[in-house]
Amino acid sequence: MNLGLIPAKWAALTPRRTALVDIAHQRRIDWATLDTRVRRLANGLRTLGLRSGDRVAVLSRNSIEYQELYFAVGRAGLVLQPLNWRLSTEALRTLVADAQPAVLVASAEFRHVAEDLGRAVDLVRLLHCGPAGDGSYEELLASAPDTEPPWCEQVQDTDPCFILYTGGTTGAAKGVVHSHRSVAAGMLNQTVAERIVPSDVYLLTGQMFHIPVVLSMNYLAHGCPVVLMNFDARQALEVIEQERVSAFLGITTMLNWMLEVPGFDTYDLSSLRNIQYGGGPMPSTMVRAVAEAFPCGLIQGYGQTEGTTMSFLSQEDHRDALRGIHPHRLRSCGREGFGTRIRVVDADGHDVPRDGRTPGEIVVRSEANMLGYFRRPDLTAAILRDGWMRTGDVATWDEERYLYIVDRLKDMIISGGEKIYSVEVEEAIGRHPAVLECAVIGVPDEQWGESVKAFVVLRPNLKATAEDIIDVTRRHLASYQKPRSVEFVTELPKAPTGKVLKRELRAPYWADRDIS
Amino acid sequence: MNLGLIPAKWAALTPRRTALVDIAHQRRIDWATLDTRVRRLANGLRTLGLRSGDRVAVLSRNSIEYQELYFAVGRAGLVLQPLNWRLSTEALRTLVADAQPAVLVASAEFRHVAEDLGRAVDLVRLLHCGPAGDGSYEELLASAPDTEPPWCEQVQDTDPCFILYTGGTTGAAKGVVHSHRSVAAGMLNQTVAERIVPSDVYLLTGQMFHIPVVLSMNYLAHGCPVVLMNFDARQALEVIEQERVSAFLGITTMLNWMLEVPGFDTYDLSSLRNIQYGGGPMPSTMVRAVAEAFPCGLIQGYGQTEGTTMSFLSQEDHRDALRGIHPHRLRSCGREGFGTRIRVVDADGHDVPRDGRTPGEIVVRSEANMLGYFRRPDLTAAILRDGWMRTGDVATWDEERYLYIVDRLKDMIISGGEKIYSVEVEEAIGRHPAVLECAVIGVPDEQWGESVKAFVVLRPNLKATAEDIIDVTRRHLASYQKPRSVEFVTELPKAPTGKVLKRELRAPYWADRDIS
Repeated sequence: MNLGLIPAKWAALTPRRTALVDIAHQRRIDWATLDTRVRRLANGLRTLGLRSGDRVAVLSRNSIEYQELYFAVGRAGLVLQPLNWRLSTEALRTLVADAQPAVLVASAEFRHVAEDLGRAVDLVRLLHCGPAGDGSYEELLASAPDTEPPWCEQVQDTDPCFILYTGGTTGAAKGVVHSHRSVAAGMLNQTVAERIVPSDVYLLTGQMFHIPVVLSMNYLAHGCPVVLMNFDARQALEVIEQERVSAFLGITTMLNWMLEVPGFDTYDLSSLRNIQYGGGPMPSTMVRAVAEAFPCGLIQGYGQTEGTTMSFLSQEDHRDALRGIHPHRLRSCGREGFGTRIRVVDADGHDVPRDGRTPGEIVVRSEANMLGYFRRPDLTAAILRDGWMRTGDVATWDEERYLYIVDRLKDMIISGGEKIYSVEVEEAIGRHPAVLECAVIGVPDEQWGESVKAFVVLRPNLKATAEDIIDVTRRHLASYQKPRSVEFVTELPKAPTGKVLKRELRAPYWADRDIS
Repeated sequence: MNLGLIPAKWAALTPRRTALVDIAHQRRIDWATLDTRVRRLANGLRTLGLRSGDRVAVLSRNSIEYQELYFAVGRAGLVLQPLNWRLSTEALRTLVADAQPAVLVASAEFRHVAEDLGRAVDLVRLLHCGPAGDGSYEELLASAPDTEPPWCEQVQDTDPCFILYTGGTTGAAKGVVHSHRSVAAGMLNQTVAERIVPSDVYLLTGQMFHIPVVLSMNYLAHGCPVVLMNFDARQALEVIEQERVSAFLGITTMLNWMLEVPGFDTYDLSSLRNIQYGGGPMPSTMVRAVAEAFPCGLIQGYGQTEGTTMSFLSQEDHRDALRGIHPHRLRSCGREGFGTRIRVVDADGHDVPRDGRTPGEIVVRSEANMLGYFRRPDLTAAILRDGWMRTGDVATWDEERYLYIVDRLKDMIISGGEKIYSVEVEEAIGRHPAVLECAVIGVPDEQWGESVKAFVVLRPNLKATAEDIIDVTRRHLASYQKPRSVEFVTELPKAPTGKVLKRELRAPYWADRDIS
């Protein structure tokens, strides 16, 4: 179950089949070549003096080398620390100071940042990879033997294989540690949800420093080619046509952009079998538009870095809802995955009623749960107990255990003693036809403690006033839930998953207070 | 990953969906009812004083109670010992003497055998289940609480969940011990090979004391209904039509019988998605006949009690071969499964050339490998070493790692110093149009050590002489490989999997010698 052995399997079974396609650099690599390079890289990293469990950081956009590193660390008994290159150098310095990697691998475009980071941590080696397979990374490979790395046999399923940092834009970044087993368990849930077949071709639309990389690695585990790109809507359509892509993860914004590409109808998208989306439910009009535009099944996934995808709204759920059977389920993020147990509990840990109305916190029991936060037993103990993981997400559930996310616990607004779930307010605002997207937060209010503030992005060429927005919420919500203020913005700050970064919206208002 | 929690999951998600259909007794049970009964049974067994790891033996044809027992022992931290009711009472006595079950559950028809066995072993309780859900088994359930059995949480993945005995017709029966994890790993291979979807319905054609029970339990793990029957060809066709069965395991003989049911064409088999077959390759004419008769994909599986299904010839492999692409692959049992690594090695443990010609022994590394033989560390050590399991099966493999079984190591004939693989001789004999099936063994020969003897079953209304049979082998084989004698029989002795029991054919010839 060592992830690093994935290329070994397929190099044995289908050596000349394409494993990875790198659109940006117009490169392809087959399984035999990939496996040889992974073995060399694993041996090369060990010859630098690294010991089992040592971290190898990587700062790069999506590339073949990035995937090689994921496999090579597993093969060598090391741990990958993928870095979010969108972060500031200062934030990155915090992350490497926390994980203390022994090696940092950086692509050419991040050479200067990498050198800066190299001064902040005691590196054994800084390796550069060039845009065309050059640099010291290649030199290490060339000089290393391509024999089977002997450390591989010593790796246990429960050994860590990578650390992904979350909350990196604040000072409170936490390293989520996954083991070979937890990743494999996350993959199994995806295998069952996506019903992968050997002829599938996967397009990785997100960045490889983020948890959905597990979804693409799962296709590799099935021997299916993965196409790497740095997302662009028009190029994505071209790539789907050219590479006969069968599946991808499309967050709402991406799908919106793709639908708006001029000449959308002229692309041949007939190879598609599944689109998974996440980062929250899509408005039903959007789901309908996607279902009509793309000739394939839809899957909604709900997940976290700490647990990969935990629940799924299936292809059948979508098909039924679009036909008018349980149409409200389009607002649900579905039910627990194949290897997952999910409960929605009150503050005392008891199940809340399955009535679709009573909110509680989602807790998850699964082998896909992370090992814990890197060197933070305090934080780990706060959310992982007796095998159950607290998600911090507030939801209701119905008789058949469909989950309806209400809010992040920390995004909940308390105004005049009333709990206001930001998602409910956002849904109401989203009913205004001019609204493309919006985000609702609580801001300090001397009278009420907090008051509701809405950030709204309007659709191109459509208009609305603050009063129009407040009006629409008045029709659908209780009076205390309506926004006190509305701010029109051109875009919302987002994480790579498409989740709106509410902490960034909140920061200016709470800067002088003790709330993160 | 406790198998006993499968009904808990689906009782939560789809409480009123059918879990099991028992054709023989015209009974159905939904998930909520099944889960309640499993909890009661688990608690009931524990109230008898059983401790974790204690064995519960079962002697019954396929029934809902049988499946309840599989789940309840997992839920209670106990271990099931399913007994092959086709065995003699004497043989069964040996098996219970070996596993020392604390409880024996027997269906009404085996009451007397069970009472006999109860005298051979120190039972805490003999439980009877009636054909209509009665007997002391039901009384135990009725009196036990339906609360969650607390022992369930203490069960580790690597704890044993059942013991299946192999070789039960000789005195050398061995108990193959599987853990929750090894069964789950075997299930994962099946999930990927069969591409299970929520709408599937599985027909269990074999008996539940045999390893393919893992295939049906996997459908239950996916929340799909399983239809239990005691195989009859006509009834199987009726059941497929009535229950909209999508998949079953059909050994060659079963498929033969089904094809010969009068009015075969009048059955609606349109619900079928997959037929898996095993127990050796089918003649290509048979594969073609099955592919034409059944509107679904074909999968060939190669497995053992010790490792569940280890290799698969996929739907695409069949489709391609039938179209004339690599047609010889119909003679292959495919390639390693999703979570499996397979090698073919010589006596020194080195890979034999992947040339499709050089035979070696199949060895398997997989989490689906058994824990070992019950209380036989000597036998376990002989076949399980460094995570690799010796199968005792001789095969060749080709460049793409397709496996071609040549023989069981112990079925190999050595005549005049030449190795003769019985399967090769059988293939040659099978080319004679009058031959339905055949088996080849070695018998003592003063001059050559062993000589080749063939047992042949002719097709109804067709004739052939011994000389005809020898003639056909002469055209396809080297002279030393041809049978010296041919015996016509009406049927061949077979294990429940459909594998011919060559040891039974050999026994009369070797009775006075020291070879099993």
